[in-house]
Amino acid sequence: MSNPSIDKLIEGILKECTPTSEEEINLHAMANKVKNKLESCVSEYKLGSKIKEIVFGGSFAKGTWLKNEADIDIFIKFKNEVDYGPFEDYGKLIGMQALKEYSPYLRYADHPYVEAYVDGVKFNIVPCFDVSFGDWKSAADRSPFHTSYVISNLNQEKKNQVRVLKKFLKSLKIYGAEISIEGFSGYVCEVLILKFGSFLSTIKFFSTYSNDNSVIGITKSDHEQEKHKRIFDSFLVILDPIDENRNLGSAISSRSVATLIQSSRKFLANPGNNYFREEPISRPNNDLKDLLSSFILVIEFKYSDRPSDVIWGQLKKMTRSICKFVESYGFRILKYQCNVHEKEKVCVIALLYESLTISKLSFKIGPEIFRLHDVEKFIEINDGSPLKWLDNDSRTRCLLFREFTNAKDYLEFVLTNKPDLIGIPRGLKNDFFRSFKIYTLDQNPSLDEHIKNTVSELLYTDGRVF
Amino acid sequence: MSNPSIDKLIEGILKECTPTSEEEINLHAMANKVKNKLESCVSEYKLGSKIKEIVFGGSFAKGTWLKNEADIDIFIKFKNEVDYGPFEDYGKLIGMQALKEYSPYLRYADHPYVEAYVDGVKFNIVPCFDVSFGDWKSAADRSPFHTSYVISNLNQEKKNQVRVLKKFLKSLKIYGAEISIEGFSGYVCEVLILKFGSFLSTIKFFSTYSNDNSVIGITKSDHEQEKHKRIFDSFLVILDPIDENRNLGSAISSRSVATLIQSSRKFLANPGNNYFREEPISRPNNDLKDLLSSFILVIEFKYSDRPSDVIWGQLKKMTRSICKFVESYGFRILKYQCNVHEKEKVCVIALLYESLTISKLSFKIGPEIFRLHDVEKFIEINDGSPLKWLDNDSRTRCLLFREFTNAKDYLEFVLTNKPDLIGIPRGLKNDFFRSFKIYTLDQNPSLDEHIKNTVSELLYTDGRVF
Repeated sequence: MSNPSIDKLIEGILKECTPTSEEEINLHAMANKVKNKLESCVSEYKLGSKIKEIVFGGSFAKGTWLKNEADIDIFIKFKNEVDYGPFEDYGKLIGMQALKEYSPYLRYADHPYVEAYVDGVKFNIVPCFDVSFGDWKSAADRSPFHTSYVISNLNQEKKNQVRVLKKFLKSLKIYGAEISIEGFSGYVCEVLILKFGSFLSTIKFFSTYSNDNSVIGITKSDHEQEKHKRIFDSFLVILDPIDENRNLGSAISSRSVATLIQSSRKFLANPGNNYFREEPISRPNNDLKDLLSSFILVIEFKYSDRPSDVIWGQLKKMTRSICKFVESYGFRILKYQCNVHEKEKVCVIALLYESLTISKLSFKIGPEIFRLHDVEKFIEINDGSPLKWLDNDSRTRCLLFREFTNAKDYLEFVLTNKPDLIGIPRGLKNDFFRSFKIYTLDQNPSLDEHIKNTVSELLYTDGRVF
Repeated sequence: MSNPSIDKLIEGILKECTPTSEEEINLHAMANKVKNKLESCVSEYKLGSKIKEIVFGGSFAKGTWLKNEADIDIFIKFKNEVDYGPFEDYGKLIGMQALKEYSPYLRYADHPYVEAYVDGVKFNIVPCFDVSFGDWKSAADRSPFHTSYVISNLNQEKKNQVRVLKKFLKSLKIYGAEISIEGFSGYVCEVLILKFGSFLSTIKFFSTYSNDNSVIGITKSDHEQEKHKRIFDSFLVILDPIDENRNLGSAISSRSVATLIQSSRKFLANPGNNYFREEPISRPNNDLKDLLSSFILVIEFKYSDRPSDVIWGQLKKMTRSICKFVESYGFRILKYQCNVHEKEKVCVIALLYESLTISKLSFKIGPEIFRLHDVEKFIEINDGSPLKWLDNDSRTRCLLFREFTNAKDYLEFVLTNKPDLIGIPRGLKNDFFRSFKIYTLDQNPSLDEHIKNTVSELLYTDGRVF
């Protein structure tokens, strides 16, 4: 069933995100220039015996980058017999030396790599090992296999469909495997288009996605899918076509998947350009912010430099720990938003509470009446409770009085006096305790811009999803 | 393993609750006198052709009544062929006429019966049908079979053990099958002693009672118990020895069972006379009452006369409905107590809230993301929500503002404007809406005695259980 208006819309988006041949020619020229520099550097340092070859990778090599948004990945393939130490050292050396005129700098993923802007285009110079399939020695070794697979299987038309899909996901902030996003990687987009043929088919698939068809595999039969569903315990299972024992979906959060499902439905019902625009999150109307300011607690702290995925991972973990901890005391967090402001090196956690004050009264529920010793222990522990009773479910209940009823007081007390009760990642502890601030939104009317942004995200409803 | 101090204690209690031979002789004389009056009345009204016989029943017939606390049950056994209308009418007539000099009055269980005090002893004159086993026509027909069974199987020593058990249960307020108690009936006590042999063995059994040994049957093997456990879905299964397809435990609340379990443990650890005394529930110390008075909501209303089991059943049902209803709005009831004050014809419900005020904020959780139409409907219904988001579990959440944040205001509003939302039993509606009052305890410092009693029960911790 073809829908002329949706087809026309996609046609327009296709044009927007497909690079011109001029862009392609320019990029290839630049890419070759940088590759030549790297190869010269290898010769200069007499590293030829350690290095198998230098190859292009990523969306540039596969021809699926978004118009005017290309990054160029270049892989330095070290021979298998090179040890890990020299691999890292020479990897850094080659990248830094070859691009020295472009102010290169080091970045860290699983291992260090070099980044530099050459004539406005970002280059990533990534060392990897030249290994046989499966004998991975570094996290980057699988990448060239993905690149070859996509190059061999994706024709020009499908490459452009990948671009439309990326644009759609990017607009919804669910494009990218990085921990800050936990969304759909470029490779996942390519696999989806290989599976479903087009952007529209992919969107249609997700609009009716259910638990029953949750395994996406290019070659496997439905029968075998059942098996994979049982093996991979994740919300969405996407089998890696070069290794069907690997689930590309495990890095995608269920929230990202749900966002794709729900926005696919809405897009099909009401297609529009807005699904392909990256608009900044608008500030919520001030009414809502004012209404909720006495329900929002902000925690901010400075952190020392570290890779983006590391700080995001630590911050997300810490935020979940804090929520769990305060909820176990009786507070209720309705929604939270955490954010790393990399420029300012500030982490912000904004928590929307059901209420910043809770009752003085609380209660505990004991074990099943049958469990003699546990019941005894429960009664002993709660000896001070002024009211104990058996409820209709036959469990013992104890009335207790809370020491703290204010969310800020409670969190401040615990962080100051019993910080180990909250699971703060070890690598963040020093930074956190040196610099943390806690305040409610209504206490602090003049907020820094990056705090305002986090609060805006907290109070944002994406009209394209709901 | 014998414990001399516990044996001595039970010996003492045995003496306290076993009637003297003087009491026995007196009761038998009185019982025969009343029975003769009933028989004369049958002759006088020429009802001999309708009536098979007049027999004693209940604890008096079985010899298990508590010293100085005997009620005497007399059953008028109508012949099977008598219709239900005449059965009721003649039943009432005989009782009322025969005992007219003792100010008899009607009471209602499943069918009407006559009650009167003769020389300080309560007599219940209950009509039943003379049926074959199993062909029950009225709820009282099974009783004579129970009586015969107990008389044939319970020796004098065990009768006295039944008395000790009754005393123990009565002291803990879990003796009696009436709906106000939902406890252990006299017949259940007899069956337990037949099963376990003595009070102490019964208590020991319950002190280690668990889900695995939850079927109590006198004759059945353990193998068959499994079957019964599956058939009877109740906390405690006690097979009726005269009909093992019947579960005597179904009328016993799990709270009553749990009370027996827990107090058995405590009694064995620390035996004392206090487990056999019926002390009135002491007023909680005023500190606790003062501390909690701003957390307690009282609902009271007058009711028109009806049988005790009827009003108790209605009140308990209504109390559960109210709790469920206010909890679904976001309030939390920690504990409740309801009470029928039969003298004043007043029902009282006392609710201990976690807090009488709740947050303005609330939220709703939508269906699973896969359920396309349900999600759509959910979003449509909550269109007015100012904040919608997908949470980590992939469900849609909506922020909502509550109209009411005060427990009393909310309940008053609903009861006045939308009473049908709360499940008030039909038979109570008129009485309730004509007379209900709602107030918080701290609003109303000068409480009637019966309200004070209900609040005392609400705030009572039984030291023999915890």
